[in-house]
Parts: sequence; structure tokens; C-alpha cells
Amino acid sequence: MPFIHRLRPRYAEIDAQGVVFNAHWLTYFDEACTRFFEDMGFPPATAFFRDFDLMVVKATIEWQGPAGFDEHVEVEVVPSRLGNSSLDLRYTATVEDRPVCVGTITYVSVTPGTHDSAPIPPKLRHQLEAASA
Amino acid sequence: MPFIHRLRPRYAEIDAQGVVFNAHWLTYFDEACTRFFEDMGFPPATAFFRDFDLMVVKATIEWQGPAGFDEHVEVEVVPSRLGNSSLDLRYTATVEDRPVCVGTITYVSVTPGTHDSAPIPPKLRHQLEAASA
Amino acid sequence: MPFIHRLRPRYAEIDAQGVVFNAHWLTYFDEACTRFFEDMGFPPATAFFRDFDLMVVKATIEWQGPAGFDEHVEVEVVPSRLGNSSLDLRYTATVEDRPVCVGTITYVSVTPGTHDSAPIPPKLRHQLEAASA
Amino acid sequence: MPFIHRLRPRYAEIDAQGVVFNAHWLTYFDEACTRFFEDMGFPPATAFFRDFDLMVVKATIEWQGPAGFDEHVEVEVVPSRLGNSSLDLRYTATVEDRPVCVGTITYVSVTPGTHDSAPIPPKLRHQLEAASA
Repeated sequence: MPFIHRLRPRYAEIDAQGVVFNAHWLTYFDEACTRFFEDMGFPPATAFFRDFDLMVVKATIEWQGPAGFDEHVEVEVVPSRLGNSSLDLRYTATVEDRPVCVGTITYVSVTPGTHDSAPIPPKLRHQLEAASA
Repeated sequence: MPFIHRLRPRYAEIDAQGVVFNAHWLTYFDEACTRFFEDMGFPPATAFFRDFDLMVVKATIEWQGPAGFDEHVEVEVVPSRLGNSSLDLRYTATVEDRPVCVGTITYVSVTPGTHDSAPIPPKLRHQLEAASA
Repeated sequence: MPFIHRLRPRYAEIDAQGVVFNAHWLTYFDEACTRFFEDMGFPPATAFFRDFDLMVVKATIEWQGPAGFDEHVEVEVVPSRLGNSSLDLRYTATVEDRPVCVGTITYVSVTPGTHDSAPIPPKLRHQLEAASA
Repeated sequence: MPFIHRLRPRYAEIDAQGVVFNAHWLTYFDEACTRFFEDMGFPPATAFFRDFDLMVVKATIEWQGPAGFDEHVEVEVVPSRLGNSSLDLRYTATVEDRPVCVGTITYVSVTPGTHDSAPIPPKLRHQLEAASA
């Protein structure tokens, strides 16, 4: 069962055309990432920055349809690539099974407090492999 | 029992000093307002703009302390004044019982689609009175 | 001549009713504050956090009218109170001389890196007095 | 000479690691797009929604480095693909000639008020061709 993050777009996030403004999807995916890591046993506020850290180096989003104010958005999070020191998470957003957008974000594992890439720690790799299955 | 909205500050909402940037509290209060009205039987995405509408005319926030990334924030929502065509909601934010900030927002009831003030509809007034008790 | 900060509301900041969402005014005032301090000779990215720091403790905004996408907003910044270790800045926003909103923000001077209040440094006080005249 | 949009990251846009949070780049690119269209003679607040409209369908961003609070960011805007009813704009962001990120956004031309794709209007096509040269 892939991990699902649920959210309701805020009124502040809806633009003059009545839909979620595009930039907020990166914020939603970041929040989904927070909950995904927490679900794997790594609450970002404590595990990140101490045990390991991830830096976003690339993001791609394709939109299929809009999401409106207070709709029930589901964001599925799946690791779609697992390298030595980098990984991709794929975020698939739907509203009541209607496709909204798909994002793929590439993260590089870095030594906390630096921008130096570092191998993905074994215990994190283990959990990501389990979540990919 | 006053209405409580629960939220976790997003990483995107934390500033360089490690705390929620001040403007986001108005967004949090707006989201708390959405959930408060839904809880009273008026889901904003449908009830607002059709049956009635509210326009923010004044907001005051006083901060007592910070809230950090992913902390467990509770926002209590209480109607603190109920006039003929305007009302105040008081938002009290805490993190694990530690005071963070208190906001008071004044709303004017308007005819949907206009900026013309209108009496608060009886069924809304009734619910606001119940929530004030 | 009071200091004026000029800005154009972004499409992302406009809500479903076609006007700047209320929370963004606190962000606009913060940006106006940045430019106001720079204009007084204290560029925030370097002067703040090193020579002195300010913490927001209270904000009040009253709205008179809306601002729309890409309109020419002017925000006048005036020190409206100057205490020993705290001060108020008053932000008056207009669109082509039409009143939009007035905000008053109370800042406490703190020792950089702490939450301990500290007297407003003399050279900052001197500039604030000049800007109040 | 390609079009350049200049901006200073706001304090509110800086995250706990001291750099612009990733989602804001889509907002910066949208603002750069507004100014780019204005520069071509199409001020978005009036020309868009009336003469033509553009819908974002895909966005890709790659980061090379960070941008910090109040730094001098330049965003170069160049049409990088011009189809019958869609186009790509490439946004290249630098801070004092240091590369920060490159975004490519695909827009579909739609009949204003609808989601129906429509050929790019000749006068817009003409200007985009001039800007690509």
C-alpha cells in the first residue's frame, strides 16, 4: 500500500481562476514528504539535519486537471528511483480519483549542515526499498 | 467545548529564524475559520458565496511565543462579538499548552457577490451564539 | 517625505474573489520594512542579526478596500511610536491614492540571537526620529 | 537582448536553511512571466483573460545553487519552443552571475474562460518569435 497524504487546499492557495496556484503543489509535495518520512520512522523535525539531510535538485510537475478550494486532495508518495546518494520520489495527486498532477522530485543525500553529497544511510535505504515494493 | 483546529507548520512556512513567519498566522486563522464554519454546518466552499459571505475588515494579532516546524499547533476558535451585520472571531494558538498568539478578526456580513453589508442570516447567528456559550 | 515602498501584487497572491488575500499584507509590510531599513542605512540582510534585531510582537490591520492583480500599490512607512526598547511602524497602503489598508506593527528590539529585549541602538533611534519628523 | 526580471527574495520566502524555499521559484517565474508579457505589450491584468489566456501544463526546475534573503536575483526569460497552440518559456535565475536554477514551463494557449486549447494569436506569436531571436 503506497503512502497517501491527504489535504484540503486553503482559500489562500486558490487563485483568481478558482484553482490551486501551481507553485503550491511543490509545497504540498514537501508536506507529503514530511509525512511520508515520519511514516517511515523519520520525523523530519528531528531526524533530518541530524541523521541525514536531503537537498532538492530537480522537480518536474505535469498537470492533468485543477483542484479547487477545500476539495479532498490525495497525494500518493512512491520512491521511483533509488541511487547511491540520490533518489526520486513520485507524487501523484488526485481529487476523488480524478487525476490532478504528477510530480517527480530528485533529492540528493547530503551530510547534515553541508552541501556535500553522502550515501543514503542504510536504515533509510531499507525503508525506501520497502516503500517502493 | 470551543472548536479546535489542529495543524502542523510546514517547512515552507518556517523562516530563517526557525519559526513560523508572522503572515502565515492569518492564513492559519483563515483555515481554522473554514473548519469552524464547516463544523457549524456551513462548508465554506458551498455555503459561502451562496447563502452569505463574510469580508475581513480588521485583524489584530499578539504574539507570546514562537511555533516551529511540524509542531502540534492548536487553534481555538470562539466568536467574541456578535453584532447586527458584523462579528469578531478570536483565535487562540498554542503548542502543547504553551501560548503562541491570539488573533481577533472582524468580519462584515455581505450580500454574496457584493461589498454591501447585510444582516447576519438567522441560522448562522443561531450557530454563532451556540459556539459563544 | 515619508518612505514609500512600491509593489505589484503577484497573480499567486490574488484569491478567488480577485483581490489580494489578507495574509499577504503582512508579507508586503515586512518587505516594505526591509526597504525602509535599507533606506535608513541598515540593509536587513547584514545589519539585522548583527548590530540589532527586531521581533514582531503585535500587528493590527484595517482594510478600507481591495487591491487587485498587478495594480500599483504604494506602502508608506512611518515610525508612529518610539519607546525605549520597542517601536511601532505604521504602514499605509494605497492604489492610485485610493485607501486600501493601514497596518501598525509593534517591534521589540532584542539582542541578536536571543529573545532578550534591548534598548534601541542610538544610531537606529536617530534615524527613526528623522523618519518620524 | 533577452528579457530580465529582477527581484529580491523576501524574508518570508527564506526557509530554515537560509535559502529561498523551492516552491517560490514557480511564483518568481510567474511574476517574471507577467513582466515579460507586459514588456511585449500584453499587460496580463488586461490582455490575459480577454485576448488570450495561457494554462500551465508542465514545469521543470533544476537547481545549481541557493539564493538567500534580499540577494539580487536576475531571471532571464526566453521562449524556448513555439508550437501551434503551446509554447515553452525558459527561466534562468542567477545571483550576480552565479547560476541558481533553470526552469522550463510549458503553457497551452486556451480560449479565455475555457480550458479549450486555441492557436497562439498571431500578434502574440510575432512577439514571441522576436523575443526568441
